[in-house]
Amino acid sequence: MNPIEEAVVTKARRAKEAARRLAYLPTTVKDKALLAMADALEREKEFILEANARDMEAARAKGLSKALLDRLMLNEKRIQEMAQGLRDVVKLPDPVGEIVAMWKRPNGLMIGQMRVPLGVVGMIYEARPNVTVDAAGLCLKAGNAVVLRGGSEALNSNAAIVKVIARAAVESGIPEGAIEFIDRPEREAAQVLMRLNEYIDVLIPRGGAGLIQTVVRTATVPVIETGVGNCHVYVDAAADLAKAEAIVINAKCQRPGVCNAMETLLVHQEVAPRFLPAVGEKLKERGVEIRGCPITLQYLPWARPATEEDWATEFLDLILAVKVVQSLDEALDHIYRYGTKHSEAIVTEDYSTARRFLKEVDAAAVYVNASTRFTDGGQFGFGAEIGISTQKLHARGPMGLKELTTIKYIILGEGQVRE
Amino acid sequence: MNPIEEAVVTKARRAKEAARRLAYLPTTVKDKALLAMADALEREKEFILEANARDMEAARAKGLSKALLDRLMLNEKRIQEMAQGLRDVVKLPDPVGEIVAMWKRPNGLMIGQMRVPLGVVGMIYEARPNVTVDAAGLCLKAGNAVVLRGGSEALNSNAAIVKVIARAAVESGIPEGAIEFIDRPEREAAQVLMRLNEYIDVLIPRGGAGLIQTVVRTATVPVIETGVGNCHVYVDAAADLAKAEAIVINAKCQRPGVCNAMETLLVHQEVAPRFLPAVGEKLKERGVEIRGCPITLQYLPWARPATEEDWATEFLDLILAVKVVQSLDEALDHIYRYGTKHSEAIVTEDYSTARRFLKEVDAAAVYVNASTRFTDGGQFGFGAEIGISTQKLHARGPMGLKELTTIKYIILGEGQVRE
Repeated sequence: MNPIEEAVVTKARRAKEAARRLAYLPTTVKDKALLAMADALEREKEFILEANARDMEAARAKGLSKALLDRLMLNEKRIQEMAQGLRDVVKLPDPVGEIVAMWKRPNGLMIGQMRVPLGVVGMIYEARPNVTVDAAGLCLKAGNAVVLRGGSEALNSNAAIVKVIARAAVESGIPEGAIEFIDRPEREAAQVLMRLNEYIDVLIPRGGAGLIQTVVRTATVPVIETGVGNCHVYVDAAADLAKAEAIVINAKCQRPGVCNAMETLLVHQEVAPRFLPAVGEKLKERGVEIRGCPITLQYLPWARPATEEDWATEFLDLILAVKVVQSLDEALDHIYRYGTKHSEAIVTEDYSTARRFLKEVDAAAVYVNASTRFTDGGQFGFGAEIGISTQKLHARGPMGLKELTTIKYIILGEGQVRE
Repeated sequence: MNPIEEAVVTKARRAKEAARRLAYLPTTVKDKALLAMADALEREKEFILEANARDMEAARAKGLSKALLDRLMLNEKRIQEMAQGLRDVVKLPDPVGEIVAMWKRPNGLMIGQMRVPLGVVGMIYEARPNVTVDAAGLCLKAGNAVVLRGGSEALNSNAAIVKVIARAAVESGIPEGAIEFIDRPEREAAQVLMRLNEYIDVLIPRGGAGLIQTVVRTATVPVIETGVGNCHVYVDAAADLAKAEAIVINAKCQRPGVCNAMETLLVHQEVAPRFLPAVGEKLKERGVEIRGCPITLQYLPWARPATEEDWATEFLDLILAVKVVQSLDEALDHIYRYGTKHSEAIVTEDYSTARRFLKEVDAAAVYVNASTRFTDGGQFGFGAEIGISTQKLHARGPMGLKELTTIKYIILGEGQVRE
């Protein structure tokens, strides 16, 4: 083993050892540790801010974009928010040990599904240091050990944060190794982690499409894909146009840089003449650049023509592709072809149209008469989220504490044998 | 693309197209197709048996083992059993469309989880042609398209079976492409399939440990690992020894060649003198070879000494490793070290010991006072199974129809937007 490999394997092995005990730790111990971690963050804020200042300096020297610098930057308020995040997790019910279902077989065996932790979660993420705290808190509450691998730009910040929270956790009775941080910035370190099936039970990548695709292509450890959202709102012939306008503006403008924002608007041809000119003006007023199909351009002559690539693009910006469709079928086909199975919405007052859309659209979240912006653990009522899964296995959509668990079957007998 | 790649991609693409329509096909159409497939198997048995005869001849010429020849062999009775398997699937409830949960948010949004198919399932398996029919039937009922890749020894048999059932399915209104079969025997064909993330939603390998590890190491498509079971029975100090004897004999002898059979017996030192001599004789009578730890050999002097390797071996045969342990903790440590997280059992009458074993053992199925042989979709009451998952993501333990589905969130609103 070379030194990088050895560093990663050592930490992953420690995490696995911790996971064994973490799995059946009482909730009270975990909650006490979460509160201690929150207090420690606030108490040691100077230490963390100093490390962050070093990261910021290096990032500025490298000429990182303003947006990236903003994600990387910590201040007192952001540290308080991270601490508050941990305190919020304390309030969530512990999912571990819940009996999801239990039934009796004809031979008298009782068979039940008990919720248990996944084991060791590997988090691979980019520049935002708050992910370090969020992931550590949620994994701990769900009884998992976590191996964190943040972006190299945030190395000092993350190392400082983990030092503070891991010490607080251990002092509260959490086994050493429960929160491990890979402090090797080399790409190879991430690659080793992604193939450590012996120690890591699941990888959750969080970041841009490039990071996620690299993990999916490289990992042999099971991955939960998160993130990319090319989301559509379809305004049907039977839409209530006032609702449609509010939903379209909210889905595009309320926070354009996130995965559940709308990227393409589909409008039924029957309502396009009444709907598009008005909503187009309002979007324009809010600084939205529109890229339209030829029919859209008839109603919005000031818009740019859309290219084929625009239909497939997650702009994450105040840019909107707009297409006029002839029918529900054309809308469904468009979503099937260009959608990323994240969040898709229809605006309609027609019962059968709504039912068809709900049934036929294959996405993590399918909406009738609501904004796609609700695809979020908090908005769904989960209290917190570790990411939004866009794959189909294990977890789909916002992932809360339950999605950080699995089940085991428990079978209670009185000596039964199989015939 | 080379011809092998092209052949696989073409079939996978057809499967994906079929999956879109399959997802919302009425149960009645699926059930009618399953019955037609069963009838077709029986009607065209000569065609299938002829293809199987060619496989058998080639297998004999290659000098395949008797056990492999038996797995490969079809006869009228086995074809009838395959047909009956399809008819049994008709009786199972359709999981698709079930609303697993639904709740109201303070803003009035109704948020529900709707069970939906996974999409396209890739099955990679070995010599047994009945897996072809089982997998096609279960995938169809759960609304999935399936791409089948069986062992090269069974190529003619599988091709004939798929020809018969796929035609019957299409004639009953199932979209073409719902049941695809990779008829290229080259290893490369499987490798292409394992990396087709664009078309395949999940891979389920079924077969020996070598096949499964190859799939886990090669695939970029999410995999559900199945199979390997190094299962233990721990006879506690507080065991009812009559129950213990019945369970031990059943877990080892009732069907030794399967993954849920016991491979290592752990016995608490307090009961070893009373338990081991008697149960040892009974196992010996049944032809079981015992490989024991030094203390075991004091009670069973005729047994072979166990090697380190024996503790880690899934014998799949009438061989049993036996170890005397000093405590529950030593038993738990042994299972943690050597177990494969499949099925683990304790025999005890002590309440707290039973609870600790249930809580602390990390396995798909954890038993108190019952034989490990019950880890099976039929025995659990699922009606059928497509495999036994030994991983933690998505499905754990026996996988029935529900495990061939995922969920999507449906959100019903009246114009809600996010603030």
